[in-house]
Amino acid sequence: MASVERVGVSLDKELLSKFDELISSEGYENRSEAIRDLIRSRLSDAKLENPKAEAIATINIVYNHHSTRLMQKLTGLQHSHLLRTISSLHIHLDEHDCLEIIVLRGRVGEIRRVGESILSMKGVKLGHVNLVATESC
Amino acid sequence: MASVERVGVSLDKELLSKFDELISSEGYENRSEAIRDLIRSRLSDAKLENPKAEAIATINIVYNHHSTRLMQKLTGLQHSHLLRTISSLHIHLDEHDCLEIIVLRGRVGEIRRVGESILSMKGVKLGHVNLVATESC
Amino acid sequence: MASVERVGVSLDKELLSKFDELISSEGYENRSEAIRDLIRSRLSDAKLENPKAEAIATINIVYNHHSTRLMQKLTGLQHSHLLRTISSLHIHLDEHDCLEIIVLRGRVGEIRRVGESILSMKGVKLGHVNLVATESC
Amino acid sequence: MASVERVGVSLDKELLSKFDELISSEGYENRSEAIRDLIRSRLSDAKLENPKAEAIATINIVYNHHSTRLMQKLTGLQHSHLLRTISSLHIHLDEHDCLEIIVLRGRVGEIRRVGESILSMKGVKLGHVNLVATESC
Repeated sequence: MASVERVGVSLDKELLSKFDELISSEGYENRSEAIRDLIRSRLSDAKLENPKAEAIATINIVYNHHSTRLMQKLTGLQHSHLLRTISSLHIHLDEHDCLEIIVLRGRVGEIRRVGESILSMKGVKLGHVNLVATESC
Repeated sequence: MASVERVGVSLDKELLSKFDELISSEGYENRSEAIRDLIRSRLSDAKLENPKAEAIATINIVYNHHSTRLMQKLTGLQHSHLLRTISSLHIHLDEHDCLEIIVLRGRVGEIRRVGESILSMKGVKLGHVNLVATESC
Repeated sequence: MASVERVGVSLDKELLSKFDELISSEGYENRSEAIRDLIRSRLSDAKLENPKAEAIATINIVYNHHSTRLMQKLTGLQHSHLLRTISSLHIHLDEHDCLEIIVLRGRVGEIRRVGESILSMKGVKLGHVNLVATESC
Repeated sequence: MASVERVGVSLDKELLSKFDELISSEGYENRSEAIRDLIRSRLSDAKLENPKAEAIATINIVYNHHSTRLMQKLTGLQHSHLLRTISSLHIHLDEHDCLEIIVLRGRVGEIRRVGESILSMKGVKLGHVNLVATESC
């Protein structure tokens, strides 16, 4: 287990009471947990600014599953050596469209480049790249 | 198949040449495709401002998989009637941490509330809610 | 002066040392100050999700100052009763373009609507609405 | 005047009618103008990913104007050679707090560094750095 340190923080009473109200409405059981989450999230954001940082990404794309050429390209890309795809999840939205969630690992810069090349593929209607820094947890 | 209309757009030559350069670097095969993607993305963003719009979300969370209480709570939540979870994907990051991607369907407002309650759970270290508008595709 | 409370927060040593490193690189003199900023920023973001919350906004727009019709419309809008414009700042970028920063006060929902109507004006090339929650400070 | 080119874009009728509805609600007078704005905004975002790109920034900060040491530091920073401050605007929010909008020019990377050092100053309660790419207009 990681060793724990106790840190003292000075806060205005008014600021503290507003914070307590917010985190209790969000479901937090205690303040330490909420402050730890703020710190982890700040560290993750700071890491993701560095194109060389290691990250995990989920790339969400919506596409028409009748376009077999796109599906072949997507599968090819996921098996290429450039990409360390971990897995992907396929969800049927309606008779035309599906959502595919591609999970991959790599450096922030590479992931963004791969993301752009996926989002620009013919047939991909919507897409978004979501990054999580892996070492700052 | 959807019927297609051809629309004329007036653009400064300089703006057009910069746009052509950008989209070719991103991998687009033609301008229409790139402009359609801009329009779809704008429509999706506009829809997601409405708490009542239908959306699909992926909630990415990083947590310590030794905390069995958290895993029970997450499983319970995903089987509750409040939530239309579609599926979830579990990925081992290292000896301590895992990434779970929960895919769910619902109204934007509900999804945000569920997201907050997941992110605030003890043991969840990092998390992010990613929304995709489903009807604007 | 506001009364101050001292709160104890438990943190993993590793998380703490990464946080200390980050905030010292950003120029923070002490941890309390950095944690207070995280809390204030979280509270501000939470407030801005409510369309009825009071906020101050800066609307940054880039436009061609040769389009006199636009400048008349912008001036008219800023003097209308709908908008509580506080002030605006005009900066020459080059021979064609200028940046105007319009500072206004109002509810989040109203500000967004006014922002949209400004950004859609003919002649406005680029624009962005930046909100600051006023009461959570 | 810039020379203008007319470009044809193929769009699904459904997508087009949703787009027309959105842009008319936002106040656009015609489609070309709305599509040009999407393109300019995409180009600006792409440029801002490059730390060496020239940009204009507005840094919004909320601080307590009783802290004279902070005001001296802010003024000193704005007159330093590191920073090409264009101007700044000072707005009284209430008896304690004011909003200062600092407009500066520089490379994206430098602006972010200056922004971090301002946001971390003791007395600065809230802050945000807003960037506009200057050449992509």
